[in-house]
Amino acid sequence: MPRMMTLDLNLPQVLIAYHSHGGNTRKMAEALAQAVSDTGCEAILETVGESAMEKLPSVDGLLLGSPCYFGSMATPVKQFLDDSIKFFGKGMLVGKAAGVFCSTGNIGGGGETTLISMTLGLMIHGMVIQGIKSGGHFGPLAIGEPDERVLAECRDYGEQFSGLVKTLFADLY
Amino acid sequence: MPRMMTLDLNLPQVLIAYHSHGGNTRKMAEALAQAVSDTGCEAILETVGESAMEKLPSVDGLLLGSPCYFGSMATPVKQFLDDSIKFFGKGMLVGKAAGVFCSTGNIGGGGETTLISMTLGLMIHGMVIQGIKSGGHFGPLAIGEPDERVLAECRDYGEQFSGLVKTLFADLY
Amino acid sequence: MPRMMTLDLNLPQVLIAYHSHGGNTRKMAEALAQAVSDTGCEAILETVGESAMEKLPSVDGLLLGSPCYFGSMATPVKQFLDDSIKFFGKGMLVGKAAGVFCSTGNIGGGGETTLISMTLGLMIHGMVIQGIKSGGHFGPLAIGEPDERVLAECRDYGEQFSGLVKTLFADLY
Amino acid sequence: MPRMMTLDLNLPQVLIAYHSHGGNTRKMAEALAQAVSDTGCEAILETVGESAMEKLPSVDGLLLGSPCYFGSMATPVKQFLDDSIKFFGKGMLVGKAAGVFCSTGNIGGGGETTLISMTLGLMIHGMVIQGIKSGGHFGPLAIGEPDERVLAECRDYGEQFSGLVKTLFADLY
Repeated sequence: MPRMMTLDLNLPQVLIAYHSHGGNTRKMAEALAQAVSDTGCEAILETVGESAMEKLPSVDGLLLGSPCYFGSMATPVKQFLDDSIKFFGKGMLVGKAAGVFCSTGNIGGGGETTLISMTLGLMIHGMVIQGIKSGGHFGPLAIGEPDERVLAECRDYGEQFSGLVKTLFADLY
Repeated sequence: MPRMMTLDLNLPQVLIAYHSHGGNTRKMAEALAQAVSDTGCEAILETVGESAMEKLPSVDGLLLGSPCYFGSMATPVKQFLDDSIKFFGKGMLVGKAAGVFCSTGNIGGGGETTLISMTLGLMIHGMVIQGIKSGGHFGPLAIGEPDERVLAECRDYGEQFSGLVKTLFADLY
Repeated sequence: MPRMMTLDLNLPQVLIAYHSHGGNTRKMAEALAQAVSDTGCEAILETVGESAMEKLPSVDGLLLGSPCYFGSMATPVKQFLDDSIKFFGKGMLVGKAAGVFCSTGNIGGGGETTLISMTLGLMIHGMVIQGIKSGGHFGPLAIGEPDERVLAECRDYGEQFSGLVKTLFADLY
Repeated sequence: MPRMMTLDLNLPQVLIAYHSHGGNTRKMAEALAQAVSDTGCEAILETVGESAMEKLPSVDGLLLGSPCYFGSMATPVKQFLDDSIKFFGKGMLVGKAAGVFCSTGNIGGGGETTLISMTLGLMIHGMVIQGIKSGGHFGPLAIGEPDERVLAECRDYGEQFSGLVKTLFADLY
């Protein structure tokens, strides 16, 4: 869990919303939240659902995480994305930063396609996607339990994502 | 609706399972069912859910249809696919024929990516995918209400798919 | 062709690099260049090749366009992307803005998957992708010759992309 | 290298066409060719190019392999696919079996998206794609040099693919 989660209205906010069955995706979410929090943004860590949905219009960035089920995001994450239709018509998420992360069971087991299934949905909202500069190319990807490689990737990506959020909203904070 | 839906145990069976909100995907499902039925297979037309799920292990082919929601299949279809995990471990769908169809609102609006999100899930079950020989390349795709172009595509694809099913299971019927 | 192409070192620069066989992708490139140029960035319009490659490290944004060949970018565009490996190791394109556009022959004919094939390559460079706020979701997409719908999409996207570039590099200009 | 490559006109033929830079994709191609040859098909192993292209219309199945370059197939493989346009209009590849394999450098490094970029191209030809029943879901995928896991996957997939080819063309042999 992030060490520091006090709300600071002078900081850009990043929502880390995820679904986790066995805990692997949750561990990645926590590592990302910590990295985001350590690098100058407010990290809000939530499972997908009502509470996360309410926060979505007001945050500056979204990191969305899911295990891989049959090559795309798990049903609860798809439900969350489909429910976000209420923000679509008015373009309420246009221009916010977005990124994704995923845990899966096997190499070649659909982790990349899961990352992309989420990315496409967030692009449709008109969000701005940060390509990852090291490690897995489309977002942090764990094979089984997140090991040190994956946690380092989460830290690096969280920091890189934090930088994007700060740049995009530099005039607000 | 297909004109002839009586069960004939001497024919290969194709399940057409779909979700439809406004009726566009349903119309495509009906056109596909008719074409399948007209070309020597038994067509079983169902919305995604319990009844369709029960039939899945016994049919020879599956045509799965969805509207495009945020670039991938709608939540009810994702739920159906995720629930089919119970057939995965024993490889109960391996070798069955599979194809997909989709309706969406706009050109470039995620219809192709929706088709592919379903295709990937069916490949993970070890199913056999029929590339489409004319029209939309990854399965019939409607922009708005299915027009004559799309319905002709459904007929052509239904017939082509029927041919694949009959070839794959030639020794059973 | 953009009306104003004089280099102005006080403006962010956007390279519009494309391959075109019959002229459809070229027309989209020109409409994008015009929109970029009209909204406060320098537009540099080039076919893929040596000259475009030389400019890549110094521009602030890249719009990459291709016709759809077999569901992904045409060989000359793939060659351009593969040749850009020389900028990869040092992360020379990390953080630059990127977007894509495509022309294809048919609805469902691979246009979306072509857009995504290019997007993935640019994400691997660590570039920042602008989700499109209206029209085709993954970038402007023409079916056959660009009509007014597509040209309007190019103008809207060019303007939106220009905005992203100016935001990302606000401290430089 | 396959132990037995003598042409036997009474066997279905599978072309294994690939590009390899450092040898990893080549090793996978050899393992697939061996498995195909061991399970009742004629295996023809070729790098992508003229000779492979000439054989394409007469074989019953194609296994296409590439390293991952920027999230999709390498330029020489894209060139091969684009050049196969000459078989497209007449539908000369419709109904043939197809599958893909890939080697890449990192987990999450674009291997899955490369497999899919090739799969989509082969679907556009109207080919029939075999979903893989174990291991990587979209085709054998190596991270770095093929290890025993990958080589076993190649053997399993080669055998499964061989079975599909024999089923599809049972009436010819």
